[in-house]
Amino acid sequence: MSGRTEVSAAQRAREDEIVARVLASFDSCSDQRLLELMRGVVTHLHSFLRDVRLTEEEWNAAIAFLTAVGHKSDDRRQEFILLSDTLGASMQTIAMNNEAVGDATEATVFGPFFVEGSPKIECGGDIARGAAGEPCWVEGTVRDTDGRPVAGARIEVWEADDDGFYDVQYDDDRTAARGHLFTDDEGRYSFWAITPTPYPIPVDGPVGQLLDATGRSPMRAAHLHFMVRATGYRTLVTHIFVRGDELLASDAVFGVKDSLVRDFEGHPSGTSPPGGRTIDGSWSRTAFDIVLAPAES
Amino acid sequence: MSGRTEVSAAQRAREDEIVARVLASFDSCSDQRLLELMRGVVTHLHSFLRDVRLTEEEWNAAIAFLTAVGHKSDDRRQEFILLSDTLGASMQTIAMNNEAVGDATEATVFGPFFVEGSPKIECGGDIARGAAGEPCWVEGTVRDTDGRPVAGARIEVWEADDDGFYDVQYDDDRTAARGHLFTDDEGRYSFWAITPTPYPIPVDGPVGQLLDATGRSPMRAAHLHFMVRATGYRTLVTHIFVRGDELLASDAVFGVKDSLVRDFEGHPSGTSPPGGRTIDGSWSRTAFDIVLAPAES
Repeated sequence: MSGRTEVSAAQRAREDEIVARVLASFDSCSDQRLLELMRGVVTHLHSFLRDVRLTEEEWNAAIAFLTAVGHKSDDRRQEFILLSDTLGASMQTIAMNNEAVGDATEATVFGPFFVEGSPKIECGGDIARGAAGEPCWVEGTVRDTDGRPVAGARIEVWEADDDGFYDVQYDDDRTAARGHLFTDDEGRYSFWAITPTPYPIPVDGPVGQLLDATGRSPMRAAHLHFMVRATGYRTLVTHIFVRGDELLASDAVFGVKDSLVRDFEGHPSGTSPPGGRTIDGSWSRTAFDIVLAPAES
Repeated sequence: MSGRTEVSAAQRAREDEIVARVLASFDSCSDQRLLELMRGVVTHLHSFLRDVRLTEEEWNAAIAFLTAVGHKSDDRRQEFILLSDTLGASMQTIAMNNEAVGDATEATVFGPFFVEGSPKIECGGDIARGAAGEPCWVEGTVRDTDGRPVAGARIEVWEADDDGFYDVQYDDDRTAARGHLFTDDEGRYSFWAITPTPYPIPVDGPVGQLLDATGRSPMRAAHLHFMVRATGYRTLVTHIFVRGDELLASDAVFGVKDSLVRDFEGHPSGTSPPGGRTIDGSWSRTAFDIVLAPAES
Protein backbone atom coordinates (compact mmCIF):
# COMPACT_ATOMS: atom_id res chain seq x y z
CA MET A 1 0.00 0.00 0.00
CA SER A 2 1.19 3.52 -0.70
CA GLY A 3 0.79 6.89 0.82
CA ARG A 4 0.58 6.35 4.55
CA THR A 5 4.20 7.37 5.11
CA GLU A 6 3.76 10.63 3.16
CA VAL A 7 1.08 11.87 5.54
CA SER A 8 2.06 14.60 8.00
CA ALA A 9 1.63 14.06 11.71
CA ALA A 10 -1.01 16.80 11.85
CA GLN A 11 -2.97 15.21 9.01
CA ARG A 12 -2.67 11.77 10.59
CA ALA A 13 -4.04 13.18 13.83
CA ARG A 14 -7.05 14.66 11.99
CA GLU A 15 -7.76 11.30 10.37
CA ASP A 16 -7.30 9.39 13.64
CA GLU A 17 -9.74 11.75 15.29
CA ILE A 18 -12.44 10.98 12.72
CA VAL A 19 -12.03 7.24 13.34
CA ALA A 20 -12.24 7.80 17.11
CA ARG A 21 -15.43 9.85 16.77
CA VAL A 22 -17.10 7.27 14.55
CA LEU A 23 -16.14 4.40 16.89
CA ALA A 24 -17.44 6.38 19.89
CA SER A 25 -20.77 6.99 18.15
CA PHE A 26 -21.59 3.29 18.62
CA ASP A 27 -20.82 3.27 22.35
CA SER A 28 -24.46 3.13 23.41
CA CYS A 29 -25.24 0.11 21.23
CA SER A 30 -26.77 -2.39 23.66
CA ASP A 31 -26.35 -5.42 21.40
CA GLN A 32 -22.78 -6.45 22.20
CA ARG A 33 -22.28 -8.52 19.05
CA LEU A 34 -23.61 -5.77 16.82
CA LEU A 35 -21.30 -3.34 18.63
CA GLU A 36 -18.35 -5.63 17.89
CA LEU A 37 -19.34 -5.94 14.24
CA MET A 38 -19.77 -2.19 13.77
CA ARG A 39 -16.45 -1.44 15.45
CA GLY A 40 -14.87 -3.97 13.10
CA VAL A 41 -16.54 -2.43 10.05
CA VAL A 42 -15.45 1.09 11.03
CA THR A 43 -11.89 0.10 11.91
CA HIS A 44 -11.24 -1.85 8.72
CA LEU A 45 -13.17 0.50 6.43
CA HIS A 46 -11.17 3.52 7.61
CA SER A 47 -7.90 1.55 7.48
CA PHE A 48 -8.68 0.66 3.89
CA LEU A 49 -9.52 4.26 2.93
CA ARG A 50 -6.32 5.54 4.52
CA ASP A 51 -4.04 2.76 3.26
CA VAL A 52 -5.01 3.33 -0.35
CA ARG A 53 -5.51 7.13 0.12
CA LEU A 54 -8.84 6.87 -1.69
CA THR A 55 -9.56 9.89 -3.89
CA GLU A 56 -12.94 11.60 -4.03
CA GLU A 57 -13.33 10.46 -7.64
CA GLU A 58 -12.69 6.86 -6.56
CA TRP A 59 -15.16 7.27 -3.70
CA ASN A 60 -17.78 8.41 -6.24
CA ALA A 61 -16.95 5.41 -8.43
CA ALA A 62 -17.29 3.07 -5.43
CA ILE A 63 -20.71 4.51 -4.54
CA ALA A 64 -21.83 4.14 -8.16
CA PHE A 65 -20.48 0.56 -8.30
CA LEU A 66 -22.24 -0.54 -5.10
CA THR A 67 -25.47 1.10 -6.27
CA ALA A 68 -25.25 -0.76 -9.59
CA VAL A 69 -24.68 -4.03 -7.70
CA GLY A 70 -27.82 -3.34 -5.69
CA HIS A 71 -29.88 -2.43 -8.73
CA LYS A 72 -28.77 -5.61 -10.53
CA SER A 73 -30.01 -7.76 -7.63
CA ASP A 74 -33.55 -9.11 -7.56
CA ASP A 75 -35.40 -12.33 -6.73
CA ARG A 76 -33.58 -14.22 -9.47
CA ARG A 77 -30.15 -12.58 -9.43
CA GLN A 78 -28.01 -11.73 -6.42
CA GLU A 79 -25.13 -9.55 -7.54
CA PHE A 80 -23.92 -8.91 -3.96
CA ILE A 81 -23.45 -12.67 -3.46
CA LEU A 82 -21.54 -12.72 -6.74
CA LEU A 83 -19.38 -9.84 -5.50
CA SER A 84 -18.76 -11.61 -2.19
CA ASP A 85 -17.93 -14.81 -4.09
CA THR A 86 -15.46 -13.15 -6.47
CA LEU A 87 -13.70 -11.37 -3.59
CA GLY A 88 -13.33 -14.68 -1.75
CA ALA A 89 -15.45 -13.35 1.13
CA SER A 90 -18.00 -16.15 0.75
CA MET A 91 -15.32 -18.84 0.78
CA GLN A 92 -13.61 -17.23 3.78
CA THR A 93 -16.87 -17.11 5.73
CA ILE A 94 -17.53 -20.75 4.88
CA ALA A 95 -13.99 -21.72 5.89
CA MET A 96 -14.38 -19.98 9.26
CA ASN A 97 -17.78 -21.50 10.02
CA ASN A 98 -17.09 -25.03 8.87
CA GLU A 99 -13.84 -25.92 10.56
CA ALA A 100 -12.54 -29.40 9.82
CA VAL A 101 -14.08 -32.08 12.07
CA GLY A 102 -12.49 -35.52 11.69
CA ASP A 103 -12.88 -36.62 8.09
CA ALA A 104 -16.08 -34.64 7.53
CA THR A 105 -16.59 -33.55 3.91
CA GLU A 106 -15.38 -30.02 3.27
CA ALA A 107 -17.79 -27.21 2.47
CA THR A 108 -17.61 -24.73 -0.37
CA VAL A 109 -19.57 -21.76 -1.71
CA PHE A 110 -23.36 -21.80 -1.82
CA GLY A 111 -23.61 -19.66 -4.95
CA PRO A 112 -26.61 -17.61 -6.03
CA PHE A 113 -28.60 -20.31 -7.84
CA PHE A 114 -30.12 -22.49 -5.11
CA VAL A 115 -33.91 -22.49 -5.09
CA GLU A 116 -36.14 -23.82 -2.32
CA GLY A 117 -38.82 -26.34 -3.30
CA SER A 118 -36.92 -28.38 -5.89
CA PRO A 119 -38.59 -31.55 -7.25
CA LYS A 120 -38.27 -34.70 -5.16
CA ILE A 121 -36.89 -37.77 -6.90
CA GLU A 122 -36.46 -41.36 -5.72
CA CYS A 123 -33.01 -42.91 -5.43
CA GLY A 124 -31.93 -43.76 -8.98
CA GLY A 125 -34.18 -41.05 -10.45
CA ASP A 126 -33.18 -38.25 -12.80
CA ILE A 127 -32.85 -34.57 -11.83
CA ALA A 128 -32.03 -33.41 -15.39
CA ARG A 129 -35.66 -32.95 -16.50
CA GLY A 130 -34.55 -32.24 -20.03
CA ALA A 131 -31.54 -30.03 -19.28
CA ALA A 132 -29.01 -30.21 -22.12
CA GLY A 133 -25.98 -32.33 -21.23
CA GLU A 134 -24.42 -35.77 -21.10
CA PRO A 135 -26.15 -38.08 -18.58
CA CYS A 136 -24.12 -38.67 -15.42
CA TRP A 137 -24.75 -41.31 -12.76
CA VAL A 138 -23.88 -40.14 -9.23
CA GLU A 139 -23.86 -42.50 -6.27
CA GLY A 140 -22.50 -42.62 -2.77
CA THR A 141 -23.25 -42.80 0.90
CA VAL A 142 -23.85 -40.36 3.71
CA ARG A 143 -22.11 -41.30 6.96
CA ASP A 144 -21.17 -39.62 10.23
CA THR A 145 -17.61 -39.04 11.43
CA ASP A 146 -17.74 -42.43 13.20
CA GLY A 147 -18.55 -44.17 9.91
CA ARG A 148 -22.21 -44.87 10.75
CA PRO A 149 -24.71 -44.50 7.88
CA VAL A 150 -27.06 -41.51 8.07
CA ALA A 151 -30.50 -42.66 6.90
CA GLY A 152 -33.04 -40.14 5.62
CA ALA A 153 -30.52 -37.38 4.96
CA ARG A 154 -31.96 -34.83 2.54
CA ILE A 155 -29.67 -34.27 -0.43
CA GLU A 156 -30.29 -31.24 -2.63
CA VAL A 157 -28.41 -31.16 -5.93
CA TRP A 158 -28.32 -28.47 -8.60
CA GLU A 159 -26.12 -27.60 -11.58
CA ALA A 160 -25.80 -25.62 -14.80
CA ASP A 161 -26.70 -27.16 -18.14
CA ASP A 162 -24.32 -27.64 -21.07
CA ASP A 163 -24.97 -24.07 -22.21
CA GLY A 164 -23.68 -22.85 -18.84
CA PHE A 165 -27.02 -21.74 -17.41
CA TYR A 166 -29.02 -22.75 -14.37
CA ASP A 167 -32.77 -23.14 -14.90
CA VAL A 168 -33.48 -19.89 -13.02
CA GLN A 169 -31.37 -17.97 -15.54
CA TYR A 170 -33.92 -18.73 -18.25
CA ASP A 171 -37.04 -16.61 -18.59
CA ASP A 172 -39.44 -19.52 -19.06
CA ASP A 173 -39.90 -20.70 -15.45
CA ARG A 174 -38.44 -24.10 -16.23
CA THR A 175 -37.21 -26.38 -13.42
CA ALA A 176 -34.29 -28.51 -14.62
CA ALA A 177 -30.97 -29.94 -13.41
CA ARG A 178 -32.24 -29.49 -9.85
CA GLY A 179 -33.83 -31.84 -7.36
CA HIS A 180 -33.71 -33.50 -3.97
CA LEU A 181 -33.71 -37.04 -2.64
CA PHE A 182 -33.20 -38.91 0.64
CA THR A 183 -30.67 -41.53 1.67
CA ASP A 184 -31.98 -45.03 2.29
CA ASP A 185 -31.69 -47.00 5.56
CA GLU A 186 -28.06 -47.76 4.83
CA GLY A 187 -27.22 -44.14 4.03
CA ARG A 188 -27.00 -44.81 0.29
CA TYR A 189 -28.12 -42.49 -2.50
CA SER A 190 -27.90 -42.42 -6.29
CA PHE A 191 -29.33 -40.29 -9.08
CA TRP A 192 -28.93 -39.29 -12.70
CA ALA A 193 -27.76 -35.77 -13.40
CA ILE A 194 -25.69 -34.32 -16.26
CA THR A 195 -21.89 -34.29 -16.47
CA PRO A 196 -20.80 -30.88 -15.11
CA THR A 197 -19.17 -28.50 -17.58
CA PRO A 198 -17.37 -25.18 -16.94
CA TYR A 199 -19.34 -21.95 -17.31
CA PRO A 200 -18.81 -18.24 -16.66
CA ILE A 201 -20.48 -16.55 -13.75
CA PRO A 202 -22.96 -13.92 -15.02
CA VAL A 203 -20.88 -11.10 -16.51
CA ASP A 204 -23.65 -8.77 -17.67
CA GLY A 205 -23.53 -6.78 -14.43
CA PRO A 206 -21.09 -4.64 -12.44
CA VAL A 207 -19.24 -7.68 -11.05
CA GLY A 208 -18.56 -8.85 -14.61
CA GLN A 209 -17.25 -5.37 -15.42
CA LEU A 210 -14.96 -5.50 -12.38
CA LEU A 211 -13.55 -8.89 -13.39
CA ASP A 212 -12.97 -7.60 -16.91
CA ALA A 213 -11.28 -4.41 -15.70
CA THR A 214 -8.96 -6.39 -13.44
CA GLY A 215 -8.03 -9.01 -16.03
CA ARG A 216 -9.74 -11.88 -14.22
CA SER A 217 -11.54 -14.79 -15.83
CA PRO A 218 -15.22 -15.27 -14.97
CA MET A 219 -15.00 -19.04 -15.49
CA ARG A 220 -16.00 -21.48 -12.81
CA ALA A 221 -14.51 -24.95 -12.72
CA ALA A 222 -17.12 -27.57 -13.68
CA HIS A 223 -19.09 -28.65 -10.59
CA LEU A 224 -22.25 -30.16 -9.19
CA HIS A 225 -23.79 -28.51 -6.11
CA PHE A 226 -24.79 -30.50 -3.02
CA MET A 227 -26.56 -29.46 0.15
CA VAL A 228 -26.98 -32.26 2.68
CA ARG A 229 -29.20 -31.84 5.74
CA ALA A 230 -29.91 -34.34 8.50
CA THR A 231 -31.11 -33.85 12.07
CA GLY A 232 -28.21 -33.80 14.50
CA TYR A 233 -25.63 -32.93 11.85
CA ARG A 234 -24.07 -29.74 10.56
CA THR A 235 -25.64 -28.82 7.22
CA LEU A 236 -23.12 -29.41 4.45
CA VAL A 237 -23.06 -27.05 1.45
CA THR A 238 -20.52 -28.22 -1.08
CA HIS A 239 -19.68 -29.14 -4.67
CA ILE A 240 -17.94 -31.96 -6.43
CA PHE A 241 -15.47 -30.98 -9.15
CA VAL A 242 -14.22 -32.90 -12.20
CA ARG A 243 -10.66 -34.24 -12.08
CA GLY A 244 -8.71 -33.00 -15.09
CA ASP A 245 -10.68 -29.77 -15.51
CA GLU A 246 -8.05 -27.15 -16.36
CA LEU A 247 -10.02 -24.51 -14.46
CA LEU A 248 -9.52 -26.19 -11.07
CA ALA A 249 -6.62 -23.82 -10.29
CA SER A 250 -8.38 -20.61 -11.34
CA ASP A 251 -12.00 -20.95 -10.22
CA ALA A 252 -13.59 -17.46 -10.27
CA VAL A 253 -15.04 -17.85 -6.77
CA PHE A 254 -12.16 -19.77 -5.12
CA GLY A 255 -14.44 -22.73 -4.40
CA VAL A 256 -12.16 -25.64 -5.32
CA LYS A 257 -10.76 -27.89 -2.59
CA ASP A 258 -8.62 -30.90 -3.49
CA SER A 259 -10.79 -33.19 -1.37
CA LEU A 260 -13.82 -32.34 -3.52
CA VAL A 261 -12.30 -33.28 -6.88
CA ARG A 262 -13.75 -36.55 -8.21
CA ASP A 263 -13.09 -38.91 -11.10
CA PHE A 264 -15.87 -38.78 -13.66
CA GLU A 265 -15.56 -42.03 -15.58
CA GLY A 266 -16.60 -41.69 -19.23
CA HIS A 267 -18.62 -44.40 -20.98
CA PRO A 268 -19.01 -44.41 -24.74
CA SER A 269 -22.20 -44.80 -26.68
CA GLY A 270 -23.59 -48.32 -26.60
CA THR A 271 -22.49 -49.29 -23.08
CA SER A 272 -25.11 -50.21 -20.50
CA PRO A 273 -25.78 -47.60 -17.87
CA PRO A 274 -26.94 -48.39 -14.31
CA GLY A 275 -30.58 -48.84 -13.41
CA GLY A 276 -31.62 -50.32 -16.74
CA ARG A 277 -31.79 -46.89 -18.39
CA THR A 278 -31.40 -46.69 -22.16
CA ILE A 279 -29.09 -43.89 -23.30
CA ASP A 280 -28.56 -42.90 -26.91
CA GLY A 281 -24.99 -41.61 -26.60
CA SER A 282 -22.17 -41.35 -24.09
CA TRP A 283 -22.63 -41.06 -20.35
CA SER A 284 -20.44 -40.74 -17.26
CA ARG A 285 -20.45 -41.89 -13.65
CA THR A 286 -18.92 -40.73 -10.41
CA ALA A 287 -19.04 -41.57 -6.72
CA PHE A 288 -19.19 -39.18 -3.80
CA ASP A 289 -19.18 -40.54 -0.26
CA ILE A 290 -20.23 -37.83 2.13
CA VAL A 291 -19.29 -37.49 5.81
CA LEU A 292 -21.36 -35.16 7.98
CA ALA A 293 -19.95 -33.33 11.01
CA PRO A 294 -22.06 -33.35 14.16
CA ALA A 295 -24.26 -30.31 14.74
CA GLU A 296 -22.67 -27.72 17.00
CA SER A 297 -24.14 -27.92 20.47
CA MET B 1 -11.93 -7.97 18.50
CA SER B 2 -12.54 -11.50 19.60
CA GLY B 3 -11.82 -14.90 18.29
CA ARG B 4 -8.53 -14.66 16.43
CA THR B 5 -6.56 -16.20 19.28
CA GLU B 6 -8.94 -19.17 19.54
CA VAL B 7 -8.20 -20.24 15.97
CA SER B 8 -5.95 -23.27 15.50
CA ALA B 9 -2.79 -22.98 13.44
CA ALA B 10 -4.19 -25.35 10.81
CA GLN B 11 -7.38 -23.31 10.51
CA ARG B 12 -5.41 -20.07 10.35
CA ALA B 13 -3.33 -21.53 7.52
CA ARG B 14 -6.51 -22.45 5.60
CA GLU B 15 -7.81 -18.91 6.00
CA ASP B 16 -4.46 -17.36 5.03
CA GLU B 17 -4.39 -19.50 1.93
CA ILE B 18 -7.78 -18.17 0.78
CA VAL B 19 -6.56 -14.58 1.15
CA ALA B 20 -3.39 -15.40 -0.80
CA ARG B 21 -5.39 -16.99 -3.63
CA VAL B 22 -7.76 -14.04 -3.88
CA LEU B 23 -4.89 -11.53 -3.88
CA ALA B 24 -3.09 -13.54 -6.57
CA SER B 25 -6.21 -13.58 -8.76
CA PHE B 26 -5.67 -9.86 -9.40
CA ASP B 27 -2.02 -10.23 -10.45
CA SER B 28 -2.70 -9.71 -14.14
CA CYS B 29 -4.59 -6.45 -13.59
CA SER B 30 -2.78 -3.97 -15.85
CA ASP B 31 -4.21 -0.85 -14.20
CA GLN B 32 -1.76 -0.37 -11.33
CA ARG B 33 -4.03 1.88 -9.29
CA LEU B 34 -6.99 -0.50 -9.65
CA LEU B 35 -4.68 -3.34 -8.63
CA GLU B 36 -3.68 -1.41 -5.51
CA LEU B 37 -7.33 -0.67 -4.68
CA MET B 38 -8.42 -4.29 -5.13
CA ARG B 39 -5.54 -5.59 -3.02
CA GLY B 40 -6.58 -3.11 -0.35
CA VAL B 41 -10.23 -4.17 -0.54
CA VAL B 42 -9.33 -7.87 -0.32
CA THR B 43 -6.83 -7.43 2.50
CA HIS B 44 -9.10 -5.33 4.70
CA LEU B 45 -12.30 -7.21 3.87
CA HIS B 46 -10.77 -10.55 4.85
CA SER B 47 -9.14 -9.04 7.96
CA PHE B 48 -12.56 -7.77 8.99
CA LEU B 49 -14.26 -11.13 8.41
CA ARG B 50 -11.57 -12.94 10.39
CA ASP B 51 -11.30 -10.39 13.21
CA VAL B 52 -15.01 -10.55 13.97
CA ARG B 53 -15.30 -14.26 13.01
CA LEU B 54 -18.37 -13.43 10.91
CA THR B 55 -21.05 -16.15 11.04
CA GLU B 56 -22.90 -17.39 7.98
CA GLU B 57 -26.12 -15.93 9.40
CA GLU B 58 -24.41 -12.55 9.76
CA TRP B 59 -23.04 -12.84 6.23
CA ASN B 60 -26.61 -13.42 4.99
CA ALA B 61 -27.77 -10.40 6.97
CA ALA B 62 -24.97 -8.29 5.47
CA ILE B 63 -25.91 -9.34 1.92
CA ALA B 64 -29.57 -8.53 2.65
CA PHE B 65 -28.61 -5.16 4.18
CA LEU B 66 -26.44 -4.09 1.24
CA THR B 67 -29.13 -5.21 -1.20
CA ALA B 68 -31.72 -3.13 0.66
CA VAL B 69 -29.37 -0.12 0.56
CA GLY B 70 -29.09 -0.56 -3.20
CA HIS B 71 -32.82 -0.94 -3.69
CA LYS B 72 -33.50 2.20 -1.63
CA SER B 73 -31.21 4.24 -3.87
CA ASP B 74 -32.54 6.04 -6.94
CA ASP B 75 -32.20 9.39 -8.70
CA ARG B 76 -33.58 11.24 -5.68
CA ARG B 77 -32.22 9.18 -2.79
CA GLN B 78 -28.71 7.82 -2.36
CA GLU B 79 -28.70 5.38 0.54
CA PHE B 80 -25.06 4.30 -0.10
CA ILE B 81 -23.93 7.90 0.38
CA LEU B 82 -25.97 7.98 3.57
CA LEU B 83 -24.29 4.75 4.70
CA SER B 84 -20.85 6.14 3.88
CA ASP B 85 -21.74 9.36 5.71
CA THR B 86 -22.95 7.60 8.86
CA LEU B 87 -19.85 5.37 8.97
CA GLY B 88 -17.61 8.46 8.71
CA ALA B 89 -16.19 7.19 5.40
CA SER B 90 -17.30 10.30 3.54
CA MET B 91 -15.74 12.61 6.11
CA GLN B 92 -12.52 10.56 6.12
CA THR B 93 -12.27 10.72 2.33
CA ILE B 94 -12.84 14.47 2.43
CA ALA B 95 -10.24 14.88 5.17
CA MET B 96 -7.67 12.94 3.13
CA ASN B 97 -8.32 14.83 -0.09
CA ASN B 98 -8.57 18.32 1.33
CA GLU B 99 -5.51 18.66 3.50
CA ALA B 100 -5.14 21.99 5.26
CA VAL B 101 -3.48 24.66 3.08
CA GLY B 102 -2.67 27.89 4.93
CA ASP B 103 -5.89 29.32 6.32
CA ALA B 104 -8.08 27.81 3.58
CA THR B 105 -11.64 27.09 4.70
CA GLU B 106 -12.12 23.48 5.81
CA ALA B 107 -14.26 21.07 3.82
CA THR B 108 -17.03 18.83 5.11
CA VAL B 109 -19.47 16.25 3.74
CA PHE B 110 -21.27 16.78 0.45
CA GLY B 111 -24.41 14.94 1.50
CA PRO B 112 -26.97 13.36 -0.83
CA PHE B 113 -29.12 16.43 -1.55
CA PHE B 114 -27.11 18.55 -3.96
CA VAL B 115 -28.79 19.02 -7.33
CA GLU B 116 -27.16 20.41 -10.48
CA GLY B 117 -28.92 23.30 -12.21
CA SER B 118 -30.08 25.29 -9.20
CA PRO B 119 -31.63 28.73 -9.81
CA LYS B 120 -29.23 31.65 -10.22
CA ILE B 121 -29.76 34.67 -7.98
CA GLU B 122 -28.06 38.06 -7.88
CA CYS B 123 -26.07 39.11 -4.83
CA GLY B 124 -28.61 40.11 -2.20
CA GLY B 125 -31.28 37.83 -3.71
CA ASP B 126 -33.27 35.11 -1.95
CA ILE B 127 -32.72 31.37 -2.36
CA ALA B 128 -35.66 30.41 -0.11
CA ARG B 129 -38.33 30.48 -2.86
CA GLY B 130 -41.06 29.93 -0.31
CA ALA B 131 -39.32 27.30 1.85
CA ALA B 132 -40.68 27.40 5.42
CA GLY B 133 -38.25 29.04 7.85
CA GLU B 134 -37.00 32.25 9.42
CA PRO B 135 -35.25 34.54 6.90
CA CYS B 136 -31.47 34.60 7.30
CA TRP B 137 -29.06 37.09 5.72
CA VAL B 138 -25.71 35.54 4.80
CA GLU B 139 -22.77 37.64 3.63
CA GLY B 140 -19.03 37.32 3.22
CA THR B 141 -16.12 37.31 0.89
CA VAL B 142 -14.20 34.74 -1.09
CA ARG B 143 -10.43 35.20 -0.99
CA ASP B 144 -7.33 33.16 -1.77
CA THR B 145 -4.75 32.05 0.79
CA ASP B 146 -2.81 35.28 0.12
CA GLY B 147 -5.85 37.36 1.02
CA ARG B 148 -6.66 38.44 -2.53
CA PRO B 149 -10.37 38.63 -3.46
CA VAL B 150 -11.64 35.95 -5.86
CA ALA B 151 -14.06 37.59 -8.29
CA GLY B 152 -16.66 35.53 -10.14
CA ALA B 153 -16.47 32.54 -7.80
CA ARG B 154 -19.59 30.39 -8.17
CA ILE B 155 -21.25 29.80 -4.81
CA GLU B 156 -23.88 27.03 -4.60
CA VAL B 157 -25.96 27.00 -1.43
CA TRP B 158 -28.63 24.53 -0.32
CA GLU B 159 -30.37 23.63 2.92
CA ALA B 160 -33.33 21.89 4.53
CA ASP B 161 -36.51 23.79 5.39
CA ASP B 162 -37.99 24.20 8.89
CA ASP B 163 -39.73 20.83 8.56
CA GLY B 164 -36.35 19.17 8.07
CA PHE B 165 -36.71 18.41 4.37
CA TYR B 166 -34.77 19.43 1.28
CA ASP B 167 -36.87 20.32 -1.76
CA VAL B 168 -35.95 17.04 -3.51
CA GLN B 169 -37.48 15.09 -0.64
CA TYR B 170 -40.93 16.38 -1.59
CA ASP B 171 -42.89 14.69 -4.35
CA ASP B 172 -43.99 17.91 -6.04
CA ASP B 173 -40.84 18.84 -8.00
CA ARG B 174 -40.45 22.09 -6.11
CA THR B 175 -37.13 23.95 -6.13
CA ALA B 176 -36.61 25.79 -2.85
CA ALA B 177 -33.87 26.69 -0.35
CA ARG B 178 -31.36 26.14 -3.14
CA GLY B 179 -29.55 28.48 -5.52
CA HIS B 180 -26.29 29.82 -6.82
CA LEU B 181 -24.65 33.21 -7.16
CA PHE B 182 -21.28 34.71 -8.07
CA THR B 183 -18.91 36.93 -6.12
CA ASP B 184 -18.50 40.50 -7.30
CA ASP B 185 -15.23 42.14 -8.38
CA GLU B 186 -14.17 42.49 -4.77
CA GLY B 187 -14.95 38.86 -3.97
CA ARG B 188 -18.07 39.79 -1.99
CA TYR B 189 -21.33 37.89 -1.87
CA SER B 190 -24.61 38.09 0.05
CA PHE B 191 -27.98 36.38 -0.08
CA TRP B 192 -31.12 35.62 1.85
CA ALA B 193 -31.67 32.03 2.94
CA ILE B 194 -33.46 30.59 5.98
CA THR B 195 -31.97 30.10 9.43
CA PRO B 196 -30.70 26.48 9.52
CA THR B 197 -32.46 24.12 11.92
CA PRO B 198 -31.52 20.54 12.95
CA TYR B 199 -33.14 17.65 11.13
CA PRO B 200 -32.81 13.88 11.01
CA ILE B 201 -31.20 12.18 8.05
CA PRO B 202 -33.78 10.00 6.24
CA VAL B 203 -34.54 7.07 8.54
CA ASP B 204 -37.12 5.21 6.43
CA GLY B 205 -34.45 2.96 4.91
CA PRO B 206 -31.86 0.39 5.97
CA VAL B 207 -29.40 3.03 7.20
CA GLY B 208 -32.11 4.39 9.53
CA GLN B 209 -32.68 0.85 10.80
CA LEU B 210 -28.95 0.44 11.43
CA LEU B 211 -28.77 3.69 13.40
CA ASP B 212 -31.79 2.61 15.42
CA ALA B 213 -30.38 -0.87 16.12
CA THR B 214 -27.08 0.61 17.28
CA GLY B 215 -28.60 3.29 19.51
CA ARG B 216 -27.41 6.20 17.38
CA SER B 217 -29.26 9.45 16.78
CA PRO B 218 -30.08 10.32 13.16
CA MET B 219 -29.97 14.07 13.91
CA ARG B 220 -27.73 16.39 11.98
CA ALA B 221 -26.53 19.64 13.55
CA ALA B 222 -28.20 22.63 11.86
CA HIS B 223 -26.25 23.72 8.79
CA LEU B 224 -26.22 25.50 5.46
CA HIS B 225 -24.39 23.81 2.55
CA PHE B 226 -21.85 25.66 0.41
CA MET B 227 -19.98 24.60 -2.68
CA VAL B 228 -17.56 27.22 -4.02
CA ARG B 229 -15.90 26.84 -7.41
CA ALA B 230 -13.45 29.17 -9.14
CA THR B 231 -10.90 28.57 -11.87
CA GLY B 232 -7.45 27.95 -10.42
CA TYR B 233 -8.75 26.98 -6.97
CA ARG B 234 -9.62 23.72 -5.25
CA THR B 235 -13.38 23.29 -5.18
CA LEU B 236 -14.63 23.78 -1.63
CA VAL B 237 -17.56 21.68 -0.39
CA THR B 238 -18.50 22.71 3.11
CA HIS B 239 -21.19 23.80 5.57
CA ILE B 240 -21.61 26.49 8.14
CA PHE B 241 -23.04 25.44 11.50
CA VAL B 242 -24.92 27.42 14.15
CA ARG B 243 -23.06 28.27 17.36
CA GLY B 244 -25.01 27.05 20.39
CA ASP B 245 -26.68 24.13 18.59
CA GLU B 246 -26.59 21.27 21.10
CA LEU B 247 -26.13 18.76 18.28
CA LEU B 248 -22.69 20.09 17.30
CA ALA B 249 -21.01 17.31 19.30
CA SER B 250 -23.14 14.44 17.97
CA ASP B 251 -23.70 15.16 14.29
CA ALA B 252 -24.91 11.91 12.63
CA VAL B 253 -22.42 12.20 9.76
CA PHE B 254 -19.41 13.61 11.71
CA GLY B 255 -19.42 16.76 9.60
CA VAL B 256 -18.83 19.42 12.27
CA LYS B 257 -15.52 21.26 12.43
CA ASP B 258 -14.95 24.04 14.96
CA SER B 259 -13.76 26.41 12.25
CA LEU B 260 -17.13 26.13 10.49
CA VAL B 261 -19.31 27.13 13.45
CA ARG B 262 -20.74 30.63 13.02
CA ASP B 263 -22.68 33.12 15.10
CA PHE B 264 -26.21 33.55 13.82
CA GLU B 265 -27.37 36.89 15.22
CA GLY B 266 -31.10 36.95 15.95
CA HIS B 267 -33.20 40.03 15.16
CA PRO B 268 -36.70 40.37 16.55
CA SER B 269 -39.81 41.31 14.65
CA GLY B 270 -39.90 44.95 13.63
CA THR B 271 -36.19 45.49 13.08
CA SER B 272 -34.96 46.54 9.63
CA PRO B 273 -33.24 43.81 7.64
CA PRO B 274 -30.50 44.48 5.04
CA GLY B 275 -31.28 45.29 1.44
CA GLY B 276 -34.49 47.15 2.16
CA ARG B 277 -36.49 43.94 2.50
CA THR B 278 -39.67 43.97 4.57
CA ILE B 279 -40.01 40.99 6.91
CA ASP B 280 -43.10 40.26 8.97
CA GLY B 281 -41.39 38.49 11.89
CA SER B 282 -37.93 37.73 13.21
CA TRP B 283 -34.85 37.18 11.08
CA SER B 284 -31.20 36.36 11.56
CA ARG B 285 -27.86 37.19 9.98
CA THR B 286 -24.45 35.61 9.77
CA ALA B 287 -21.14 36.17 8.04
CA PHE B 288 -18.92 33.59 6.37
CA ASP B 289 -15.61 34.66 4.86
CA ILE B 290 -14.31 31.91 2.64
CA VAL B 291 -10.67 31.17 1.77
CA LEU B 292 -9.97 28.95 -1.25
CA ALA B 293 -6.90 26.74 -1.51
CA PRO B 294 -5.05 26.78 -4.85
CA ALA B 295 -5.89 24.01 -7.30
CA GLU B 296 -3.54 21.05 -7.14
CA SER B 297 -1.12 21.19 -10.02
